[in-house]
Amino acid sequence: MTEEVKKSLEFVKKTLEEAMIYGQASSIINFDMETICPPAGMEREGEVAAFLGNKVFTLLKQDEFIKAGEVLYAHKDELDEETAVLATSLHKDYIRNKNITPEMNLEFSKIYNKSYVDWVNAKQKKDYSLFAPSLQAVKDIEIKKVELLDEKKEVLYDNFIDMYEPGMTTKMLDEYFDKCRERLVPMLKKIQNSKKKIRTDFMFRTVTDEAQQKMARYLLEIMGYDFNRAAFTTTEHPFTTGIGKNDERVTTHYYPNMFISSMYSIIHEGGHALFDMYSPAEHWDSFIETEKSMGQHESVSRFYENRIGRSEAFIHLIYDKVKEIFPEVMADVSERELYEAVNYVEASLIRTEADEFTYNFHIMIRYELEKELLNGNITIEELPQKWNDKYEEYLGVRPSNDAEGVLQDVHWASGFGYFPTYALGNAYNAMYYNRMKNELDIDKLVSEGHIDKINEWMKENVWKRADLLDADVWLKEITGRDFDPTDFLDYLEDKFGKLYELD
Amino acid sequence: MTEEVKKSLEFVKKTLEEAMIYGQASSIINFDMETICPPAGMEREGEVAAFLGNKVFTLLKQDEFIKAGEVLYAHKDELDEETAVLATSLHKDYIRNKNITPEMNLEFSKIYNKSYVDWVNAKQKKDYSLFAPSLQAVKDIEIKKVELLDEKKEVLYDNFIDMYEPGMTTKMLDEYFDKCRERLVPMLKKIQNSKKKIRTDFMFRTVTDEAQQKMARYLLEIMGYDFNRAAFTTTEHPFTTGIGKNDERVTTHYYPNMFISSMYSIIHEGGHALFDMYSPAEHWDSFIETEKSMGQHESVSRFYENRIGRSEAFIHLIYDKVKEIFPEVMADVSERELYEAVNYVEASLIRTEADEFTYNFHIMIRYELEKELLNGNITIEELPQKWNDKYEEYLGVRPSNDAEGVLQDVHWASGFGYFPTYALGNAYNAMYYNRMKNELDIDKLVSEGHIDKINEWMKENVWKRADLLDADVWLKEITGRDFDPTDFLDYLEDKFGKLYELD
Repeated sequence: MTEEVKKSLEFVKKTLEEAMIYGQASSIINFDMETICPPAGMEREGEVAAFLGNKVFTLLKQDEFIKAGEVLYAHKDELDEETAVLATSLHKDYIRNKNITPEMNLEFSKIYNKSYVDWVNAKQKKDYSLFAPSLQAVKDIEIKKVELLDEKKEVLYDNFIDMYEPGMTTKMLDEYFDKCRERLVPMLKKIQNSKKKIRTDFMFRTVTDEAQQKMARYLLEIMGYDFNRAAFTTTEHPFTTGIGKNDERVTTHYYPNMFISSMYSIIHEGGHALFDMYSPAEHWDSFIETEKSMGQHESVSRFYENRIGRSEAFIHLIYDKVKEIFPEVMADVSERELYEAVNYVEASLIRTEADEFTYNFHIMIRYELEKELLNGNITIEELPQKWNDKYEEYLGVRPSNDAEGVLQDVHWASGFGYFPTYALGNAYNAMYYNRMKNELDIDKLVSEGHIDKINEWMKENVWKRADLLDADVWLKEITGRDFDPTDFLDYLEDKFGKLYELD
Repeated sequence: MTEEVKKSLEFVKKTLEEAMIYGQASSIINFDMETICPPAGMEREGEVAAFLGNKVFTLLKQDEFIKAGEVLYAHKDELDEETAVLATSLHKDYIRNKNITPEMNLEFSKIYNKSYVDWVNAKQKKDYSLFAPSLQAVKDIEIKKVELLDEKKEVLYDNFIDMYEPGMTTKMLDEYFDKCRERLVPMLKKIQNSKKKIRTDFMFRTVTDEAQQKMARYLLEIMGYDFNRAAFTTTEHPFTTGIGKNDERVTTHYYPNMFISSMYSIIHEGGHALFDMYSPAEHWDSFIETEKSMGQHESVSRFYENRIGRSEAFIHLIYDKVKEIFPEVMADVSERELYEAVNYVEASLIRTEADEFTYNFHIMIRYELEKELLNGNITIEELPQKWNDKYEEYLGVRPSNDAEGVLQDVHWASGFGYFPTYALGNAYNAMYYNRMKNELDIDKLVSEGHIDKINEWMKENVWKRADLLDADVWLKEITGRDFDPTDFLDYLEDKFGKLYELD
């Protein structure tokens, strides 16, 4: 390493150390806003978070920092792997933000913040018109950000997906969703026409928050969640956030008449948390621990939620405990009935409550809508109508108000391009599951409660190098294969074909 | 206002605006640490808070800021009242911190932070030796800070009390506590020898957290707590913190076998919160909303807790609701029995659980110990022994371990001089209660649930000018009299004389 590279690296690390403090402060404040901040305090707290976020932005926009980062990037072949990843990431950020000033960035933050507040309010009042002006403003910023890029990708939507899933393209997504449509739409019809009866009555029996909390803790514990390094609380909208090396947070929500909802929500968020808390700790020190893509992240959370959590083996593992914690609800429910219930397929309106089979339909709808919206083929005003039409077309159900339609998810309040990563996650984990099962007797380990062995495999094969690689390269390293949704679609056909006794 | 003063004021306000953002961020992070941060994440989060706190310190140590502040101070007679208070406060801070560099300040913060963490650990393990080195370090800093003052007060302890209660002196405190000792120690003996039987059995009956939470919400509601501008959650150690103009937070703790404990804890913290949330909102904009002294604050919290909350009128108001929320506990308990139970006098070990009568004994002990400690008459090593001896001497009880002895309170982990303010609060509110009762029929208002009328009086007479005045001047403005503990001691003698049927 030349003296120049060495000095540049020192300066970069020193600056990033400071930036990380501001970033963590801002994360804690955002967590506070989502968990406890009183309504009238939200606006001010949003300003405080935006101020700190902009401190990060400003630090990384300093000429000296950019120069140092570019020195590293020019010499990245001489650097160790972690530092090379950092250099590439800095270069990418530099290019992406080149034409955005701190003033513009602060302005953007305020619009995103307001948009979040408006969304909360609009959803509560079930009135899209209270959110539409903010959504228009967000869309305008998002388009403007692309226009400000020195090097734009030719296909407009590629610029968005690239933010969350580098290496993925609109073309690949189109092919993926085409296959989903082709194979899953006709299969859904078959399921709906199947004679198979699945008991669902007990799913709606009343449970207490206290029992649900006990269940949530139990699930996190058997998953290997480390309560010494992680917190757990409740919020309206469950989420996971990594504050620091030893500080991960998951939240959940309890519905008195949907105990299964909270169980799978906590397994999902717990999956995100495991990924963060068992990624290499030293990646925090090399400032690359945020390099995981959203598709990678969703692949892990949905792996635990569905591939593990909704398997017969897992139901076998937890059945006695479910009976113990919800004795009245479960009094007349067999293990098989519980398994079938958690896999009951139903065309429904709410993504987060969707079963494993119809989940991708919800993503497909959002993907198609946001692409059309960004391409200018539909307007902000038309969005609720188009949303409802697509639900009718794909799932045969129609929202009766905006809260169960276009307002159900928060994501668009902070931009576009995120949704497809959920569907990618499903396809990624199907591919690595198929490799894992060659090496481990997954069902046996799960049914006997050795989820730690699954976690070990994930740590070694899935988590260890996720920060270092773009998702496509990472997936190829794990599986030896290029991205291919076939594994996922085959799995769905097999699992739900058996469950619904299709021919 | 001259151009120079105008410009100075502008610069001061601009700087304080920025400092306030850092300060609020730091408060939110401290709140997070006390409520949800996982154990292993505490150290890092403490660093983040210290970094932000030091940003405030550094901003206010800038030459230009100090110069501008001194210009204001030199012209304070030409300024409006709020700005003059700000100028005085800035001058005082300047003098106090003159010889402390940002580096030293950051170093100090780290020691205080570590000391907090060590205290938590030591208390949990009931082992003072785990806290002693940190406490020594804190004491050393505190002494060093006094040594660094250009203008020291002659009596060492005066420099400490001045931080929390400007205008108060060691001499006045000594006189106050002498009177307490003189009148209360013999009276406690009489109470202990009284034939009066107070029922306490039901106080220890088991209740659920859920019922206690319902009770806490009810109490906050009838007090006039504004949930739109304030949050409420649980922590190991109850506290109140004001994050911003529209963001106040109180916490409480539920013991399954001490439902009265949490009721009075929430009224106490709720009192602090009312003071903050109904202080003039514009004081936030003039940056003087932090000028309340601790004695003022404790006077209000203890006014609601004791003068209102433990009165017959208040018990009359809440009795039906207490029966409704704790039906089994209260089945065989009369209104009079509840009143007597919440006023049951018992020499005990834990300050926060002490009854109204013995409370000042706990403060007296801490005051005497910290004075002796700072004066070098007792050492850190001797402290637990001396603590236990004093409890035996004044109250006739002796802690069986450090957790219920010297480790019970967190305060010394962040310095000395705070404790006496609790006792001052008791004396202040007795003085203004005596004025209030000339103007309002307090018992009638309380028993009929018109606590809003009490709040209105407090707002007008106690809260409105608290930020503007030192406690002694403020008290004289309210009552027309100088500080005098007689009102408080008379009140105790009268109330507990009647309750215990003393001659």
